[in-house]
Amino acid sequence: MVASIEQPVPTAVYAEVQQFYARHIHLLDDGHVTEAVDTFTEDASFLSPPKISEPVRGKEDLLAGFHAAERTLAQSGERYRRCYTMMAVQPQEDGTVHVRSYVQVIVTRHGEVSRLHAMCVCEDVLVRQNGELKIYDRVVTRDDVA
Amino acid sequence: MVASIEQPVPTAVYAEVQQFYARHIHLLDDGHVTEAVDTFTEDASFLSPPKISEPVRGKEDLLAGFHAAERTLAQSGERYRRCYTMMAVQPQEDGTVHVRSYVQVIVTRHGEVSRLHAMCVCEDVLVRQNGELKIYDRVVTRDDVA
Amino acid sequence: MVASIEQPVPTAVYAEVQQFYARHIHLLDDGHVTEAVDTFTEDASFLSPPKISEPVRGKEDLLAGFHAAERTLAQSGERYRRCYTMMAVQPQEDGTVHVRSYVQVIVTRHGEVSRLHAMCVCEDVLVRQNGELKIYDRVVTRDDVA
Repeated sequence: MVASIEQPVPTAVYAEVQQFYARHIHLLDDGHVTEAVDTFTEDASFLSPPKISEPVRGKEDLLAGFHAAERTLAQSGERYRRCYTMMAVQPQEDGTVHVRSYVQVIVTRHGEVSRLHAMCVCEDVLVRQNGELKIYDRVVTRDDVA
Repeated sequence: MVASIEQPVPTAVYAEVQQFYARHIHLLDDGHVTEAVDTFTEDASFLSPPKISEPVRGKEDLLAGFHAAERTLAQSGERYRRCYTMMAVQPQEDGTVHVRSYVQVIVTRHGEVSRLHAMCVCEDVLVRQNGELKIYDRVVTRDDVA
Repeated sequence: MVASIEQPVPTAVYAEVQQFYARHIHLLDDGHVTEAVDTFTEDASFLSPPKISEPVRGKEDLLAGFHAAERTLAQSGERYRRCYTMMAVQPQEDGTVHVRSYVQVIVTRHGEVSRLHAMCVCEDVLVRQNGELKIYDRVVTRDDVA
């Protein structure tokens, strides 16, 4: 992600982005797969090594991937919570919004103590469609394998 | 908590809610029990299984509960830090504000390494009284026992 | 840090402060030492026991300290991510901005599971110089040694 010259971030955009991620992640972590996929654009790209080492492209493949991840979690009795912090929000001249965040992935197996599974950095390109923010491009890197 | 139709969140409310939680949690974690209870309404309800398996109702009982929790912590030499992330803020038509957040509860025993004690979800109904936000209803669920 | 009478925080300031910390911490954690030091004032003071038990004063000494910390990390093969939450932002009458935050310091050694290294509280005094926020005074305390 090439950073453009830094602009002050409009206050409304910063709050909107935080709210967007809260809703997006709640949908994802709660297994509302269809609604979660709707927070991506039709032609979205998603890369998250080592599990997703080639970009997943398009909503259909994202949906299949999220469904598969849900099944794996259900079988293992685990629940994920992705805790985003340190969101650097950079609106670009082309109307997209770049967001770089830290993500602590907390995993809980029923009846066991919750634990930090992975420390990640999430770099997203958001676009606006019919007034709503959507994820157009996501690259997640994990500190333990980066 | 029944979600109403989603409205865009006014920017000012989003920042105000974040600031409210920061102050509220600092008071609670620092053992300022009386001031912490003042961030709830007189008739507030608080439910947090498995420890608090029946709703605690009203400021008097909340105060007693927080004092008891403080004594337990003091005896064990432990300190709590509740780290809220992913706040989804939803103002309702009746003037209340629904907030759903992730909470990492970090516990530190003096001289020992800090550790993740519990991963929780906090669902609050906030109301406005004399201009100030107050907690009217709180339900906390823990991933390891949910 | 002596708290003044609490004022409602202007929304724009709250978002600006969050964005400031995101950028500041990304620079620090990514090892961009020179740019990270530029987020402090020329006469900044930094105290963080037990490692930094006497205040480091001025950009030159900060730079030397950050470079030394970077070398230590590089040798150990570790990476730090400082995750700020619960930011209480209090603009003061003298134009400074007091910010009290929780900081989870997550450390990852390449190829090993990420872990919570320390739970800290960061108390900063920010000032505005040529329109930009800078750190004038920082005191970090760790729960395990406080």
